[in-house]
Amino acid sequence: MSTDAKELAGKNRLHSKGISTLHYVAYNDSRVEESQSIDLQQTGADDGRVHWSHIDGLGDHALINAVAGRYGIHSLLLEDILNAKQRPKLEDYADSTYIVAKLVSFDAVKKRISSEQISLVLGKNYLLSFREKPSALFDGVRERIRSGKGRIRSQKSDYLAYTLLDTIVDEYFVVVEALREQIDLLQSRLLTKSDPQIPKVIHQVRLEVASFRRGIWPLQKVVEQLLKSESSLIDPQTKPYFRDVHDHLLRILDHVEALHETLNSIIDAYLSLSSQRMNEIMKVLTLFSTIFLPLTFIVGVYGMNFKYMPELEWRFGYPLTWLVMIGVATGLGIYFQRKKWL
Amino acid sequence: MSTDAKELAGKNRLHSKGISTLHYVAYNDSRVEESQSIDLQQTGADDGRVHWSHIDGLGDHALINAVAGRYGIHSLLLEDILNAKQRPKLEDYADSTYIVAKLVSFDAVKKRISSEQISLVLGKNYLLSFREKPSALFDGVRERIRSGKGRIRSQKSDYLAYTLLDTIVDEYFVVVEALREQIDLLQSRLLTKSDPQIPKVIHQVRLEVASFRRGIWPLQKVVEQLLKSESSLIDPQTKPYFRDVHDHLLRILDHVEALHETLNSIIDAYLSLSSQRMNEIMKVLTLFSTIFLPLTFIVGVYGMNFKYMPELEWRFGYPLTWLVMIGVATGLGIYFQRKKWL
Amino acid sequence: MSTDAKELAGKNRLHSKGISTLHYVAYNDSRVEESQSIDLQQTGADDGRVHWSHIDGLGDHALINAVAGRYGIHSLLLEDILNAKQRPKLEDYADSTYIVAKLVSFDAVKKRISSEQISLVLGKNYLLSFREKPSALFDGVRERIRSGKGRIRSQKSDYLAYTLLDTIVDEYFVVVEALREQIDLLQSRLLTKSDPQIPKVIHQVRLEVASFRRGIWPLQKVVEQLLKSESSLIDPQTKPYFRDVHDHLLRILDHVEALHETLNSIIDAYLSLSSQRMNEIMKVLTLFSTIFLPLTFIVGVYGMNFKYMPELEWRFGYPLTWLVMIGVATGLGIYFQRKKWL
Amino acid sequence: MSTDAKELAGKNRLHSKGISTLHYVAYNDSRVEESQSIDLQQTGADDGRVHWSHIDGLGDHALINAVAGRYGIHSLLLEDILNAKQRPKLEDYADSTYIVAKLVSFDAVKKRISSEQISLVLGKNYLLSFREKPSALFDGVRERIRSGKGRIRSQKSDYLAYTLLDTIVDEYFVVVEALREQIDLLQSRLLTKSDPQIPKVIHQVRLEVASFRRGIWPLQKVVEQLLKSESSLIDPQTKPYFRDVHDHLLRILDHVEALHETLNSIIDAYLSLSSQRMNEIMKVLTLFSTIFLPLTFIVGVYGMNFKYMPELEWRFGYPLTWLVMIGVATGLGIYFQRKKWL
Amino acid sequence: MSTDAKELAGKNRLHSKGISTLHYVAYNDSRVEESQSIDLQQTGADDGRVHWSHIDGLGDHALINAVAGRYGIHSLLLEDILNAKQRPKLEDYADSTYIVAKLVSFDAVKKRISSEQISLVLGKNYLLSFREKPSALFDGVRERIRSGKGRIRSQKSDYLAYTLLDTIVDEYFVVVEALREQIDLLQSRLLTKSDPQIPKVIHQVRLEVASFRRGIWPLQKVVEQLLKSESSLIDPQTKPYFRDVHDHLLRILDHVEALHETLNSIIDAYLSLSSQRMNEIMKVLTLFSTIFLPLTFIVGVYGMNFKYMPELEWRFGYPLTWLVMIGVATGLGIYFQRKKWL
Repeated sequence: MSTDAKELAGKNRLHSKGISTLHYVAYNDSRVEESQSIDLQQTGADDGRVHWSHIDGLGDHALINAVAGRYGIHSLLLEDILNAKQRPKLEDYADSTYIVAKLVSFDAVKKRISSEQISLVLGKNYLLSFREKPSALFDGVRERIRSGKGRIRSQKSDYLAYTLLDTIVDEYFVVVEALREQIDLLQSRLLTKSDPQIPKVIHQVRLEVASFRRGIWPLQKVVEQLLKSESSLIDPQTKPYFRDVHDHLLRILDHVEALHETLNSIIDAYLSLSSQRMNEIMKVLTLFSTIFLPLTFIVGVYGMNFKYMPELEWRFGYPLTWLVMIGVATGLGIYFQRKKWL
Repeated sequence: MSTDAKELAGKNRLHSKGISTLHYVAYNDSRVEESQSIDLQQTGADDGRVHWSHIDGLGDHALINAVAGRYGIHSLLLEDILNAKQRPKLEDYADSTYIVAKLVSFDAVKKRISSEQISLVLGKNYLLSFREKPSALFDGVRERIRSGKGRIRSQKSDYLAYTLLDTIVDEYFVVVEALREQIDLLQSRLLTKSDPQIPKVIHQVRLEVASFRRGIWPLQKVVEQLLKSESSLIDPQTKPYFRDVHDHLLRILDHVEALHETLNSIIDAYLSLSSQRMNEIMKVLTLFSTIFLPLTFIVGVYGMNFKYMPELEWRFGYPLTWLVMIGVATGLGIYFQRKKWL
Repeated sequence: MSTDAKELAGKNRLHSKGISTLHYVAYNDSRVEESQSIDLQQTGADDGRVHWSHIDGLGDHALINAVAGRYGIHSLLLEDILNAKQRPKLEDYADSTYIVAKLVSFDAVKKRISSEQISLVLGKNYLLSFREKPSALFDGVRERIRSGKGRIRSQKSDYLAYTLLDTIVDEYFVVVEALREQIDLLQSRLLTKSDPQIPKVIHQVRLEVASFRRGIWPLQKVVEQLLKSESSLIDPQTKPYFRDVHDHLLRILDHVEALHETLNSIIDAYLSLSSQRMNEIMKVLTLFSTIFLPLTFIVGVYGMNFKYMPELEWRFGYPLTWLVMIGVATGLGIYFQRKKWL
Repeated sequence: MSTDAKELAGKNRLHSKGISTLHYVAYNDSRVEESQSIDLQQTGADDGRVHWSHIDGLGDHALINAVAGRYGIHSLLLEDILNAKQRPKLEDYADSTYIVAKLVSFDAVKKRISSEQISLVLGKNYLLSFREKPSALFDGVRERIRSGKGRIRSQKSDYLAYTLLDTIVDEYFVVVEALREQIDLLQSRLLTKSDPQIPKVIHQVRLEVASFRRGIWPLQKVVEQLLKSESSLIDPQTKPYFRDVHDHLLRILDHVEALHETLNSIIDAYLSLSSQRMNEIMKVLTLFSTIFLPLTFIVGVYGMNFKYMPELEWRFGYPLTWLVMIGVATGLGIYFQRKKWL
Repeated sequence: MSTDAKELAGKNRLHSKGISTLHYVAYNDSRVEESQSIDLQQTGADDGRVHWSHIDGLGDHALINAVAGRYGIHSLLLEDILNAKQRPKLEDYADSTYIVAKLVSFDAVKKRISSEQISLVLGKNYLLSFREKPSALFDGVRERIRSGKGRIRSQKSDYLAYTLLDTIVDEYFVVVEALREQIDLLQSRLLTKSDPQIPKVIHQVRLEVASFRRGIWPLQKVVEQLLKSESSLIDPQTKPYFRDVHDHLLRILDHVEALHETLNSIIDAYLSLSSQRMNEIMKVLTLFSTIFLPLTFIVGVYGMNFKYMPELEWRFGYPLTWLVMIGVATGLGIYFQRKKWL
């Protein structure tokens, strides 16, 4: 076992024991402050800055409860954050908005989609984000905050929420591409020789596409609600950005719809081709059988050992038999040609 | 027959004769009073306490009529309670709300879903609940009331109604799991050898999933109505709890939808695989037939007993025949290889 | 021909010639008056009583026109009553409401559903009902009026309309039961041996279920309209009764939906089982063919009559041939076992 | 070529060259004036009369432009009238309403549905109607105007529009009947022996039903719009008549829906029966093959010419062989009976 | 490589390097000014003229940014214009409306549909249009402006937007025709002999029709939004023109729907015909096998070499055997005729 693998195993053990890590960033136009310690004293102060607390891993209930307490999170909401099996949804509270999204990723090795929950709690001057498993997904966003590139530093917490949602939705395009590749592969396999694995692969991809669609559809509803929301938490100037995310989701849904239709068409094509190939096989079998069964019968007749069989004594019995057999074969050949089997 | 079995039989007999049992609990923040007798004097008094009367079994009409009379239940409503074949529904009356839900359970032995009716009548300071068959389902709720754990004691009757609905909906997750297990089993059987039982099992599971869905869908509508309801019986502070139940129901519907799609995909995969296997079988049959039919014909020819067959006298007639036969077989082999059958 | 049959034939002849019979009942809390004569003098008087005129058979236009004239029925409405091919519908007129319903019944002998039209014209203090064919369907209602049982005598014409609709909808449950029985029979036949009649029976039952559904759906809409109606003809106190009818219709639609899904599942199961059985048959055929074709070829070889065939002279040629053949058969057996065909 | 046929050919030639014929009728309660000349002086005068100009054939643009100019028809509207490929639609203009309907007819010889466009422009005191091809369809309406039968003479232009729509919709019933006949024929052919033409006929009828439905659905929308319209052009008293047309269209849609479902069911039944028949055929083939292949092998064995074959010398070798063969055949027979193939 | 091909290659290289070309036209009733230079000084002046800037090719970001800057285009909008993968959509901004449409064209050689994005930005007195690839599509519009034919010169920028959309939608009809031709070809191939290519062609055409439909549906929504829009940019007098475009889109959707249904029906017909042909083939095979297998067995019996076979010595053994065989064959023939296989 290499040192890296050991470290990884150690990390996993810790995680399963319930480690959560906090990344706290507070920023405004002029300055950025960061902290990873659990010393939460500064968090949430209403000082014109945006306070973003991101928690990776849902194991350390003490930490999460401390954060939740400070921001006055409802107990039912906290339950939803911790029980990572929610559907994407939006809930408006008096002074915060709760958003559940699903981060979907494609495992290139197992050829399987996996999804995990990301919860956002958006307040006037803060954003809490919770992610099931630790990863580097939001590192780019923090980097942008630090460097002050783009408009993120001059905006409020709603823009930060948009940035996170946008990051999540961008991952969907990767999954769509991966699914499309699998389906294109299926299509090209379909056109070559009959492959016994195809039905199983179709079945698997189909379930993945369906599960992917079930995850996106409610998220699109969530963003639609955000767009229509009259909550003071969402600035009218940020709405075009959410509309952009909504457009992306609609495009992804279009793609997924296309994948779904392609799969259905592949299934039909597979059945048609299968039926077509069966017909081909049966024609060959029938041709051989119908030609050779009568001939074998004829030669069988003259293989009988009866004492009195006049034909056997004939001078030209043997060639005559050949003539008869050639005639029978030719007749059947013409018959099948008329039936358009040849 | 063991004593237990006798008791059980006795109980069932009683039940079929029409025994209903009443569990009456009245509670507020400070005290809890319980009774199982039919002495209904205290029931329904408007004394700041929540009065919960639960009736197990719908057989004893006298008892049920007495309860109904005391709470002024409409005759049509009473009919619906007694005729346990209602769809889940919500009806608003002047000073009470009537809710019909279905309790669904999975019989692990028969592999069948069974459902029974639970009726709730929610009033200002009381809740009536009626269940078709006696069981321990709500014992946990009573226990919570007795012990005063959680917030139930400090809440009104609407919270009690929520608690009962939540208990019912939690049972659905068990059923979903049982159905998913059956379907996973089907999927793994599908991938191994052709199993003649699969179509029948698919058929049965499909009907169960469909019947389950038909039961949940209207209940989800009922909870939606509760959420939108402006009845004074539902406190705004209890609504988040009903929203939670609604979320659970949506999640269950998502799961059921997924099961439904998986089953459809399994059917298609089964037909494709079946067709695929047929092609395989037919290829083998056709290969053997098309190779051996001509050969058998050839050996038949030289088995004929004509007096004048020059080939039979040839010195190398026999090996020549073998050469011809090997040539024919080889030619057919090449032909099938070109057709990609080998 | 028995006397009964003659009478029946006579009745039918009369009916086809256009006999309509009028049953007129006027009642209030205290008294009931009945008449079958066409003397319509009393009909429709506004005397605090409910005037119910029921007409069986739509043949006698003179009678129907007389009734229509007295109650001031619009000519288009009259046309709809007489042309018994309407869809269930509700039309609100200034001082009356016109309801078309379909009475559906199941012919146990022909195994066919038949439907006929029942038209109701509901006015302030009267109800007209028209039925295509004479029958005893509403006798029970009249009996209830006469005896004064239940609440019917103390209610207005809207309650009478409810009672008739309820009677009609109750008949639907009978039909649902009959259809379910047919489908259960189909299911049990499906699980036994392949039955060539099944596709035809499925086809017939499917058309019946579809036609039944097409009849109920608009009626459910009609009752919904009644529930939402703000017409003064429908008393708010009668609405719970109509809601009850609506619930019944929704339950019937649920049942019909279940039947529909079951049928679809049966079709899929039939095709799967059929395909499955075909595979079984083909395997047997292929096993026999692939084992015996090579063996027959081998024995054919040594049945040839060539002068020079060294094997024929060998001392152990015959047992050796047997050994070879057993070897070939065993090899093929192992091959098929590997392919999981055995 | 008969004189009639010549005349017809002449007419068609003229039509293709662009002849349009005008039928102008102006009427009120007391008098009727008719004209077929293109002298349009009187048309459209606001004199309390209804002015109906019907134009058969869309070829003569000069005439149509003249009419359009007089009634102030928008250029886009005129384009729609002349380009006879519109969908049924309704357009409200300031002082007129434009209605496009499709006249559908069934060609009994070609067994094909054909459709053509009828455009109505409804004004306060006029109605313009345009039909693609000349025919006698509206002769009955003109006859009713002349004779003064019914209520048409006492009504306004909206009633005339209703009459024309009603005439058009009545034609639909004829088409529905023709389609139903074709489908009934299909059904009865289905139940007799396997007919290779059935799939093609199903395909054709299916396309016809689909195209018919696509034509009716938007027309139903049009009439619904008319019913909801608050335009002063539609008198409230005429609305019941339009509601009647709407009912007819809903009934036709019901019928079409039924035809559609029947066709789908026929397709499924065809595939099931086909699969069923295949199973039957395969069983016969397999029975014969599995019984005769072993027997033929056995007789082949004793047809071998080995010098040393002890059985051949046995006294009872031949009858013993028969016994063995009978045993084998019986054994296989029992096996198949167990498998329920017999 | 010919000179033409070189030029083309050069052009493509330039394009891929990011050449965009600007066509600027400013016009009113009396005069037209055109320019292709990037000197943008005049563009966008509010001088009562319509300023139309069309940009072919999205490669030259400097040029596009210059144009965007002058017209004050939002950065998200600019991103959508440059990232040519948007769905058709409409976005209302304070003083402009952004429309994305898809231009669809059919490549007759590859038999494939290709689509590209056209973005319109409609302002009070200007219209910006952006097209992915350079082409002559809008040359006709510019020609109409130059020549002053039609009403375009007297109208505002909204009419120009209509003209461009109309030009785009007209291209759809060409694609519909091309698809219909492909499908008609499929249908005629279906009715002749079994063609192994059909399933693949159906699959391809199906995907094309589906992708075409996905492109049109949102565009229809866009035009609907334009119709309902209360933006001051759309003059009420221009709305009939947009309604016309909407009608065209609905007609195209109807056509696409018809193509879709036809394809589905073709798939079903293909499977039915395939199954039908298989039955035919199997019948022939079974007939031959069941007749010749018993006969071959019989002749095999008398080919055995047993020493003691009394029949072989009979005087009429040989003709008797023939009689038996003819009897067997006749019997089987009658049997199959009864089964309606002949």
